[in-house]
Amino acid sequence: MEKTKKDTTILLKNNERIDDLHRKGYQIIQDPGRFCFGMDAVLLSGFAKVKRGEKVLDLGTGTGIIPILLEAKTNGEHFTGLEVQEESADMASRSVSLNNLEEKISIVTGDIRDASNIFGASSFDVITTNPPYMIGEHGLKNNADAKTIARHEILCTLDDILMQSTRLLKQGGRFYMIHRPFRLAEIFAKMVEYKIEPKRMQLVYPYIDKEPNMVLLEGLKGGKSRITIEKPLIVYEDENVYTQDILDIYEK
Amino acid sequence: MEKTKKDTTILLKNNERIDDLHRKGYQIIQDPGRFCFGMDAVLLSGFAKVKRGEKVLDLGTGTGIIPILLEAKTNGEHFTGLEVQEESADMASRSVSLNNLEEKISIVTGDIRDASNIFGASSFDVITTNPPYMIGEHGLKNNADAKTIARHEILCTLDDILMQSTRLLKQGGRFYMIHRPFRLAEIFAKMVEYKIEPKRMQLVYPYIDKEPNMVLLEGLKGGKSRITIEKPLIVYEDENVYTQDILDIYEK
Repeated sequence: MEKTKKDTTILLKNNERIDDLHRKGYQIIQDPGRFCFGMDAVLLSGFAKVKRGEKVLDLGTGTGIIPILLEAKTNGEHFTGLEVQEESADMASRSVSLNNLEEKISIVTGDIRDASNIFGASSFDVITTNPPYMIGEHGLKNNADAKTIARHEILCTLDDILMQSTRLLKQGGRFYMIHRPFRLAEIFAKMVEYKIEPKRMQLVYPYIDKEPNMVLLEGLKGGKSRITIEKPLIVYEDENVYTQDILDIYEK
Repeated sequence: MEKTKKDTTILLKNNERIDDLHRKGYQIIQDPGRFCFGMDAVLLSGFAKVKRGEKVLDLGTGTGIIPILLEAKTNGEHFTGLEVQEESADMASRSVSLNNLEEKISIVTGDIRDASNIFGASSFDVITTNPPYMIGEHGLKNNADAKTIARHEILCTLDDILMQSTRLLKQGGRFYMIHRPFRLAEIFAKMVEYKIEPKRMQLVYPYIDKEPNMVLLEGLKGGKSRITIEKPLIVYEDENVYTQDILDIYEK
């Protein structure tokens, strides 16, 4: 299948489809058999602050959803998505072309563990990441599929991400991550260890009377110890009814 | 002023008063000019779990509110309150006598920084603490009053508390603390450092749409890294109207 946009012809491969992002007319290529972006990517792009002129790196960008949403929402100067899986990186590159964003967004195929060698130290103002949440299962390593790699710490760990991020960020640069609350103590301890001080946190609760299932974090490279915890972000008011806060994030 | 209860005569000193705890008929002696217990002590006594037969130490017990509430709420075998300020410790001792709890609760006058020397290593199943929230202000040191000592890290720091607690707790013993959310990253990093692994956390929000102003924490000495974050604890439904969750904690 082919889709023509302005002067570009974008090739869709087997099982791929084009989804509308409801934002500046942007679209994204996804393959439901591989991995489609979830609410976590949308929440992270709403939580992250990118200022005019800043350079942003998204570690483990998958289909490129976070750079594309951040380009739409912010005045950042340039966005880079790093992705180790070739098929995902290729899909992300085609989405960038589909939206005519080649000058604003670069997709690089490479390993997070090599990121500071690829891009150089102190080269970004902002890092975003929606990393694998589950602790590595080494037994899966040899035949892991795209979904497993996206969800489990097979190709990179939290330590890898923080070690690379502290090198890649400028002093005073900001780190944004969405993760699972059950790992919060470990995340805070390691962020402090790698000198990316946790400065802001928001817990995401599916319902007001349930335990949170996601946590949004902002760290400051070289920051002092003091964190702001924001009001709870509640997802559902009722079954299948989003709260106004969630609607605002999807629409703004 | 004197108050007679059973065979005991309890002396009240200047400005002291006796307040009812609405629990098993227990009362507490307080001096509004010094320090009265707040909601934090009540929330901590609701969050802490003490099992039948366990020995509990409260670090910085003040007027003894936490051991007295825990004795009322749990089946713990014995409760000790350690307090460095002589006047507060004396008031706590008189409250213990007033409630005829001398066999269940001991009040010890002493410094948290000496606690493991006073009580010995691995001597408690549970430690509770409602420590000073504010980072030490050394300028205040020489003429600090009781309220200032209770609120600022003048006589002991978070490090002192965790260093002593990890010595005082048995392996697998539990640590309960209420603190301020702005110090959460530091608290987690130090708990991990002192091998009191954060296992459970509840944030206390004054209203559902406000930032939290207290955090309740449970740590496990020698525990593995995995934390449960509970549903938010909201204090007010409306101005001056407590939520049912808060009423339950006060009444159960």
